[in-house]
Amino acid sequence: MGNSIITISREYGSGGREIGEKLAKRLGVEFYDKEIITMLAKESGLSEEVVRSWAEKDVSAFFYGINAARGIIPIPDRIFGARRTVLNELADKGSCVIVGSCSDYILKDRDNLWKFFIYAPMDFRKKRVAEVYGEDLATYPNLLKRKDEERRDYYSHFTSYKFGDYKNYDACFNSAIGIDNVVDLIEYMVKKG
Amino acid sequence: MGNSIITISREYGSGGREIGEKLAKRLGVEFYDKEIITMLAKESGLSEEVVRSWAEKDVSAFFYGINAARGIIPIPDRIFGARRTVLNELADKGSCVIVGSCSDYILKDRDNLWKFFIYAPMDFRKKRVAEVYGEDLATYPNLLKRKDEERRDYYSHFTSYKFGDYKNYDACFNSAIGIDNVVDLIEYMVKKG
Repeated sequence: MGNSIITISREYGSGGREIGEKLAKRLGVEFYDKEIITMLAKESGLSEEVVRSWAEKDVSAFFYGINAARGIIPIPDRIFGARRTVLNELADKGSCVIVGSCSDYILKDRDNLWKFFIYAPMDFRKKRVAEVYGEDLATYPNLLKRKDEERRDYYSHFTSYKFGDYKNYDACFNSAIGIDNVVDLIEYMVKKG
Repeated sequence: MGNSIITISREYGSGGREIGEKLAKRLGVEFYDKEIITMLAKESGLSEEVVRSWAEKDVSAFFYGINAARGIIPIPDRIFGARRTVLNELADKGSCVIVGSCSDYILKDRDNLWKFFIYAPMDFRKKRVAEVYGEDLATYPNLLKRKDEERRDYYSHFTSYKFGDYKNYDACFNSAIGIDNVVDLIEYMVKKG
């Protein structure tokens, strides 16, 4: 497979993170997901708490406008700037799997890049979010809808792409066919690649 | 794999037909593509020439409106009605691969259905259309754009889905990874079932 950077973009609750983690183990390469928050904090000079709270926040929010009008670089922009630096540093280190973080867009000009998109039907995602994250979807009935909107808005705000547009990916998988099946398929593609 | 109906939706020039044909051979099941035109003609009572000329035509065309206003069932609707009958008959016969024909939509309520979408970058498709169909894209520079629009309009006119929306598929493959690789991947998925 040579030196391969594998990016996994995903719908919330589709199991993209688990797929990425299992894939990295199978391939024996680094896996980057939550640790990116720590690196973004270090790079941007913001606290991890602030980075986490703004990482996929609604970029059209009130405070964003206020900051921009004042000529201060808004927090989401500072975080996105840090993303560019951090993801390129990680990709330079060698083969890895990166989940989310607009990594498919930021690293798009690299030759050794694989780009996958993971999605799933709403019912599958609801069940998974309740099981894996323990979120009570009876209390937050719009959680998935809101998360979808946030990811879509964030992605289109900072990239020239549309979130989930198949054109940007090597393949897109419905994880309802089975998390391990998707891992098998991506492993096959990357090893053959 | 049991009794499986595999539908392949595709962008023009992406190699979806070749993928479907090779897949059917590998799985030892029937392959339906161009023969559907003959069946549609028989079912609708129209000639094959008329069916072929209207099969993916712009459904908002002038004559379509005229016919509808007069209360005559427009030709595209008659063809779509025939599609429902023909595709259900084929699916009832047993395992098969069906390319296009809105088969993913028409057969959507079947349990044993696999739905795949094949796409490719514009340059890949242009090269393929020139090589496989011998079309001179210098003479018809907008051929692919027009074909994309026709398929999109036809699909959204007759179905409640959006053409190329990943949500409707088990997986979507960029055929630039290699036609045979895509065949391998779908074969793996269907056999694993």
